[in-house]
Amino acid sequence: MTNFLRKGRLKPLERNVLSYTSSLKSDLPLFNHVIKINHAHVLMMIEQKIIDSTHGTMLLKALDSIKKNNIDSSHEDIHMYVEEEVTKRVGSIVGGNLHIAKSRNDQVSTAIRMELREKLIRLISSIIELQSSMNSLAEKHTKTIFPGYTHLQPAQPVTFCHYLISYIDSFGRDIQRLQNAYHGVNLSPMGACALATTSFKINRNRVSNLLGFDDLLENSIDAVSSRDFLLETMAALTVLAINISQIAEDLIIWSSLDFGLIELPDDFASTSSIMPQKKNPDVIEVIRSRMANILGNFLSCATAIRTLPSSYNLDVQETTPILWSSLDTIEKAIQMLSNLFPKLKINNEAMNKPHFNLITSTELANILTRKYGIPFRTSHKIIGTLCRYIIENSLTVTNVTPALLSKIIAEVSGHQLTININDIKSALEPTNFIEAHAVIGGPSPIEAKRMLESRRQRMDALTNWLTTVKKKLAEADRQLKTSKIHYFPK
Amino acid sequence: MTNFLRKGRLKPLERNVLSYTSSLKSDLPLFNHVIKINHAHVLMMIEQKIIDSTHGTMLLKALDSIKKNNIDSSHEDIHMYVEEEVTKRVGSIVGGNLHIAKSRNDQVSTAIRMELREKLIRLISSIIELQSSMNSLAEKHTKTIFPGYTHLQPAQPVTFCHYLISYIDSFGRDIQRLQNAYHGVNLSPMGACALATTSFKINRNRVSNLLGFDDLLENSIDAVSSRDFLLETMAALTVLAINISQIAEDLIIWSSLDFGLIELPDDFASTSSIMPQKKNPDVIEVIRSRMANILGNFLSCATAIRTLPSSYNLDVQETTPILWSSLDTIEKAIQMLSNLFPKLKINNEAMNKPHFNLITSTELANILTRKYGIPFRTSHKIIGTLCRYIIENSLTVTNVTPALLSKIIAEVSGHQLTININDIKSALEPTNFIEAHAVIGGPSPIEAKRMLESRRQRMDALTNWLTTVKKKLAEADRQLKTSKIHYFPK
Amino acid sequence: MTNFLRKGRLKPLERNVLSYTSSLKSDLPLFNHVIKINHAHVLMMIEQKIIDSTHGTMLLKALDSIKKNNIDSSHEDIHMYVEEEVTKRVGSIVGGNLHIAKSRNDQVSTAIRMELREKLIRLISSIIELQSSMNSLAEKHTKTIFPGYTHLQPAQPVTFCHYLISYIDSFGRDIQRLQNAYHGVNLSPMGACALATTSFKINRNRVSNLLGFDDLLENSIDAVSSRDFLLETMAALTVLAINISQIAEDLIIWSSLDFGLIELPDDFASTSSIMPQKKNPDVIEVIRSRMANILGNFLSCATAIRTLPSSYNLDVQETTPILWSSLDTIEKAIQMLSNLFPKLKINNEAMNKPHFNLITSTELANILTRKYGIPFRTSHKIIGTLCRYIIENSLTVTNVTPALLSKIIAEVSGHQLTININDIKSALEPTNFIEAHAVIGGPSPIEAKRMLESRRQRMDALTNWLTTVKKKLAEADRQLKTSKIHYFPK
Amino acid sequence: MTNFLRKGRLKPLERNVLSYTSSLKSDLPLFNHVIKINHAHVLMMIEQKIIDSTHGTMLLKALDSIKKNNIDSSHEDIHMYVEEEVTKRVGSIVGGNLHIAKSRNDQVSTAIRMELREKLIRLISSIIELQSSMNSLAEKHTKTIFPGYTHLQPAQPVTFCHYLISYIDSFGRDIQRLQNAYHGVNLSPMGACALATTSFKINRNRVSNLLGFDDLLENSIDAVSSRDFLLETMAALTVLAINISQIAEDLIIWSSLDFGLIELPDDFASTSSIMPQKKNPDVIEVIRSRMANILGNFLSCATAIRTLPSSYNLDVQETTPILWSSLDTIEKAIQMLSNLFPKLKINNEAMNKPHFNLITSTELANILTRKYGIPFRTSHKIIGTLCRYIIENSLTVTNVTPALLSKIIAEVSGHQLTININDIKSALEPTNFIEAHAVIGGPSPIEAKRMLESRRQRMDALTNWLTTVKKKLAEADRQLKTSKIHYFPK
Repeated sequence: MTNFLRKGRLKPLERNVLSYTSSLKSDLPLFNHVIKINHAHVLMMIEQKIIDSTHGTMLLKALDSIKKNNIDSSHEDIHMYVEEEVTKRVGSIVGGNLHIAKSRNDQVSTAIRMELREKLIRLISSIIELQSSMNSLAEKHTKTIFPGYTHLQPAQPVTFCHYLISYIDSFGRDIQRLQNAYHGVNLSPMGACALATTSFKINRNRVSNLLGFDDLLENSIDAVSSRDFLLETMAALTVLAINISQIAEDLIIWSSLDFGLIELPDDFASTSSIMPQKKNPDVIEVIRSRMANILGNFLSCATAIRTLPSSYNLDVQETTPILWSSLDTIEKAIQMLSNLFPKLKINNEAMNKPHFNLITSTELANILTRKYGIPFRTSHKIIGTLCRYIIENSLTVTNVTPALLSKIIAEVSGHQLTININDIKSALEPTNFIEAHAVIGGPSPIEAKRMLESRRQRMDALTNWLTTVKKKLAEADRQLKTSKIHYFPK
Repeated sequence: MTNFLRKGRLKPLERNVLSYTSSLKSDLPLFNHVIKINHAHVLMMIEQKIIDSTHGTMLLKALDSIKKNNIDSSHEDIHMYVEEEVTKRVGSIVGGNLHIAKSRNDQVSTAIRMELREKLIRLISSIIELQSSMNSLAEKHTKTIFPGYTHLQPAQPVTFCHYLISYIDSFGRDIQRLQNAYHGVNLSPMGACALATTSFKINRNRVSNLLGFDDLLENSIDAVSSRDFLLETMAALTVLAINISQIAEDLIIWSSLDFGLIELPDDFASTSSIMPQKKNPDVIEVIRSRMANILGNFLSCATAIRTLPSSYNLDVQETTPILWSSLDTIEKAIQMLSNLFPKLKINNEAMNKPHFNLITSTELANILTRKYGIPFRTSHKIIGTLCRYIIENSLTVTNVTPALLSKIIAEVSGHQLTININDIKSALEPTNFIEAHAVIGGPSPIEAKRMLESRRQRMDALTNWLTTVKKKLAEADRQLKTSKIHYFPK
Repeated sequence: MTNFLRKGRLKPLERNVLSYTSSLKSDLPLFNHVIKINHAHVLMMIEQKIIDSTHGTMLLKALDSIKKNNIDSSHEDIHMYVEEEVTKRVGSIVGGNLHIAKSRNDQVSTAIRMELREKLIRLISSIIELQSSMNSLAEKHTKTIFPGYTHLQPAQPVTFCHYLISYIDSFGRDIQRLQNAYHGVNLSPMGACALATTSFKINRNRVSNLLGFDDLLENSIDAVSSRDFLLETMAALTVLAINISQIAEDLIIWSSLDFGLIELPDDFASTSSIMPQKKNPDVIEVIRSRMANILGNFLSCATAIRTLPSSYNLDVQETTPILWSSLDTIEKAIQMLSNLFPKLKINNEAMNKPHFNLITSTELANILTRKYGIPFRTSHKIIGTLCRYIIENSLTVTNVTPALLSKIIAEVSGHQLTININDIKSALEPTNFIEAHAVIGGPSPIEAKRMLESRRQRMDALTNWLTTVKKKLAEADRQLKTSKIHYFPK
Repeated sequence: MTNFLRKGRLKPLERNVLSYTSSLKSDLPLFNHVIKINHAHVLMMIEQKIIDSTHGTMLLKALDSIKKNNIDSSHEDIHMYVEEEVTKRVGSIVGGNLHIAKSRNDQVSTAIRMELREKLIRLISSIIELQSSMNSLAEKHTKTIFPGYTHLQPAQPVTFCHYLISYIDSFGRDIQRLQNAYHGVNLSPMGACALATTSFKINRNRVSNLLGFDDLLENSIDAVSSRDFLLETMAALTVLAINISQIAEDLIIWSSLDFGLIELPDDFASTSSIMPQKKNPDVIEVIRSRMANILGNFLSCATAIRTLPSSYNLDVQETTPILWSSLDTIEKAIQMLSNLFPKLKINNEAMNKPHFNLITSTELANILTRKYGIPFRTSHKIIGTLCRYIIENSLTVTNVTPALLSKIIAEVSGHQLTININDIKSALEPTNFIEAHAVIGGPSPIEAKRMLESRRQRMDALTNWLTTVKKKLAEADRQLKTSKIHYFPK
């Protein structure tokens, strides 16, 4: 192991203690960022005349030559690894100045933010893809009648498209939350150093710009100790995970043979080792279960951070791998769903099942009110009595005649009234129901088309946002490279 | 008990079952909103000619006459209570039409959002007040040296002001999150009805405007089933609670006699029933503990919602009182802190304690590098060795002479070098340290003043935002009232 | 407000601060216990000659005369309230010695334990009642065929009784966990005082015995600071809550019209405000949702306690009301279920639904192996192929002829084999299936009866345990009363 | 990839879907158990004449020859892997019968329980080791005065030994909870098959005995679906993690320079990359943070399981790796602490710090009461006033003279009383304080020795329990091997 930092103040560390606290393994995704941070920092130090350009150039080149793949495990973290490697290449006179005016505390937070912003961009992109795959499916099902449930009991007919739009919309809000998180993430702590900035005349804005940040995380204590960007991200992931869980729940219930509303593709299901007839929704169950981990991970981090005293404590190191794990888990689930939706089969026969019999009864009540002037609450009671009568006598809506309805109206309200047979038929027909529900946000096919079109536009707008954000980061990268090459001999 | 809704479809409910599921008690904060929703809905129905204006006027007046205070407990919820009371007043012919084209499902979600937006406004306002109380305290302490810690070990001197700004800034981000949540909350579900909108020709935008919403929550399934607005709010409260917990932790540790950096006011402390010398930080401990409940509450709700199938399920009813409880708990904690900060006493002697002895040693290393050209990593090792020497020989920084330093420099680096006594003295003096750390976001008094001024401006901007938001709601209220009175006979 | 304790060391408290930290409201359930603790403590002090018997008798009588109902809210907690009331009655010379050799720290923990043990006894008793109600229902359904599901897909037939036994058994383990918790709860902290015991010559065992404890919680720091008894209880409640949630989930899914396996009694359901046909499982949904709170409550407390430094901190005060709330929530849910089960209607027709068609196919594979010597994995493949054939050709098991089977056997395994028609019929008949599954723990009616009988015996044994435990507490109460009266003048 | 099971019922799986749901990686610790289960199952099948002994012997040998190390990743899980490997070795005629009368559902649960019981044994063993290391340290510190804190404020003197015993005792209860969990874990689900047992005449008890289980998990639905054994274990780990967190918190606070009560060994600390004087408690911080994950992991699993319908769902597969991760995290933390405690340095000078000045004041109040007959509440007020006087006048207890005390007594109580100077001195001397607190569970050195001796005995008893448990498992292993070899040709 290495005692790079300890030679002065402390006696050497035992190997098992080092391996207990080392973050090297979970630091690996940060490698490129740490190199860039050091590049930007060195460039700024040259410009601010904190180090001379000869030494600076040597540092820049040494940083360029470090490779990620052969890191030996005897380092505290990626930050010390990079400094040691630089020092090996350029000697301790030059390399010894790489760490002027910075500290691991600001560098750690900066590197995590750089990795996180990339992962957020990728995640948002995945969600848009999933929305798009749902949108395409929805376009095929604007007229596919599907039972709407409340309390898992048949409520009113909608379309399968209408369900899909409700998912697309909730994912839209998830994206909004991830964008909000992005703005909190993309702030630069560099220059905060240990917690009190530095007495060297650094230029924090220059480093921030070279690394593509939108702004500084100004106060230096705040800059090194705050982890609300991590918690906000994980909270947004938690809400997203709950949305995904609910979709998984729907898919599992709907594809149960008892519901029989949809059929999962064979390649997303498995059979039993003993029961030959089984087709189990394995993939969806795994998705559902892993979404619970996102919630658990949030708790781990929130609890770990909750009572830390101000400024940097090593406890926060342990929250980073949990963040990566949550992001990875969510992204994989979204990819699975993106692949699944196009293959989903809707069972068009399902609406014929006898228990959907009474699903349009609200509309019958509405017609009593709208056309026959019965107060709605009375209509509700009349049709409720009708429903009970139908159920208790094992009838179906096809048995609803004007005579029967008149009898029940008289019983419930004391009024004599004859309802036109066509009104009854029309009210009870799901297709009519759907078309009649044509207000904004309703399930009618015409409104569905309008909604799908507007969602497609939102996706385009989001894709544009992503392009802008990525361009800004690419431009900073280009700047960093150009500035660096400027010092290299031709 | 009442069987208002059940007379048709179901047999009566037992009293204990009713009292088990009734949400009436936790619905009380929603009363005014439910009245307003009904007002807006009736107005829209008149305008859309769904009901005639005579009946409509009777409904509007009846709604006006219902009082919150004498609700008897035999109702399922506030929504049925209001409908029943209206019906009592105007009879079932007129009253029976109040519920045309709406459902409890959309009305519940609408009313919760109306209450929540008010509570969010009040909460943001409280946080600004707390920031302001901290800002005022900070202005008095721009030069008060205070130990900066990392890992609960003395790190570098900062000022007490600098700590306070770090808190103000983290609260600033909390406010941002609550504003984001506000935008997701202030959307109108009305018109979604049970889950499929309605066949009546309603005007969803009109109701939304009369109730002060920014927009519709469009898709009707989404409108009744989504609770991400609640989870997003509670997640924001959780991050806020963690910020508060960390401040509580600081105050408890700093006011321990061993730290002795601050003293809590007597009226925020209590003594022991047995140990006469005790002064315990009771209030802060209670704050710290209650902040854990905010996290637990979030998890209760997240877990309750996680695997609900699409659309409305009664499970979500149970999340609402938890939301109110979290908001109340947070607000009280913030008020306590707002009262506490102005009374906080800083112990100016604390920095004289011998263990702060080495707290400026980073600056000594910096000077070796900056003035004497020693590579920073070598300076770090030299001063680390010096620190160990001082500790092992029970010395203090006053014992650091040029001779001692030269001896250690020689030992560590092999170089002969004499450090000027004034450089040593200057480096080790905390006041110099603070002033030298003058980069953006650093603890120097000048930078502190700039930061405090900019925070003050941000608070003003937030207060303006609040004013605008409140004006919009007040304007909608005025509109609702005017539109209503329009139908009343002079 | 009262400044009973503060007159020496600290300045008075503000009213709003007092009301913020006062635990008086949530202390009310502790009132009787606090009186008993003081009785026991005074008796012990008389016996140990720490106070004389005249003063002691005055204290005992004064304690007897305090009533719970008129507590004014200006007290820190129930402990100070009782001491003040005693002092009011007997003056400060005598009353001033009530608190010799004890502290709130030990008294709080003792009183919570006394209340908790009673609540645990009551809860265990409720669970036994629920088990008993399920056992009675199960006895009626030992032959009622019911679909067994895995992955929510039909798997194999069982009986409804078999399901109920699985619930009874999981509740049995919940009871075991609550009994384990009881043993950790029923330990006496009294005598630990603030955290270091006392220099008075007290007799901790005497107090412990008079209060019905099984033993001392010995080490005095441990005695005042440990809250693992609370966490262990809440963890046991959490696992219990998850068992209840799973039952709720089953009931909601099984009573959906699509599953249609059971029907909930009308008085546990409600209808919709708009959809007249609806019958919603409201009570079960509320149960399911509230069980999530038990988990959230556990996390609140675990988080609050996690990083407290050793010994007493006021944070723990806030965990007590959460404990009471969880116990109350669980108990009510169990009572609801106890009332529900006897009214549950099983739909005997449900097994006739076409999609249960292939539910016995495992047995057909078993018979191929057992009677015809086909290796099981080959049988599994043969019947799997048969199932796919049936599904793809929209057939049912009634179409399975020896000829069809022979054809598939030949296809899959290359063998010529004729299966007897009676073997096919017998394998596919659910009643045969159930009877053939007669190993220990299986669904056969004979085994069911044996299991039900053995569960009944376990319930009796548990009831006996409860009786013993309650007797011990009653005996301690009797002892306390006798010892007290001994000092009272005839 | 392999389509071993799918050839009949379903079309092939895509590779990315397989790798998403495969549990093979986290199944690896189960390999040996799966082999044993198959051995025991085959032996039982031979004995029950379900398969003949020639085939049985071939299966037993084939199982013996499978190695863990070269598993290719294209398998659903370890269970299918083993069956396929056997089939490769003995052909499908013989190998095809390995899965008669069992299912993955029962086999998975059985294998997890076998691994878990081993891990529980190892964990309990580690905790005993930690207790033992603390006990040894405690023996050296029975007279080392150490400040007792409540609310992080100095309360009363205890000894360092006394603190250590409080930790030993809380770990003792953790062990009890893990033993309770063990009893719930060590039950055999084998024979439950998919969820309904089997129509083959198996002997469940025989398999259970050969695998070292204490009993059957009887009801077959319960056997495959219950995961309360996992939740109970993880709940016990959570409470244990909180105990460890609290110890970590103590160590971090006590080793802060401001407290300065203990010093951590250099090899458990690290320095800063920038501040040369730093010695940070890295290891303890990492321990503290990782303990939060145990809580988060519990939530993940509890949430994943909470609303699963009865019987097996694949969601539970995802909880197993989380269980292993929690056990591993806890065990490592315990090992770190076991290594740390012997190296811990107690700062004997710490008690001399001025702010411990008033730490014995309770005893002064006690003496006023015990020797001078002042009611305790009055004594408390007198000494409280004295404390305030000392603090406000910057005095110390050495300034407490009989005259000063008399003056304050007169002020507070109106009485004239002279306190003997020796009583004052004796009361204020920490060593006297400790010795005077000699009741059961108190900090006096004599009582400490008795407690340490009794703890040592408890550890011995636990070690004996472990030996018995391990013997039973070893005996079952021996039986399994003997029974197996019986069929092998000499």
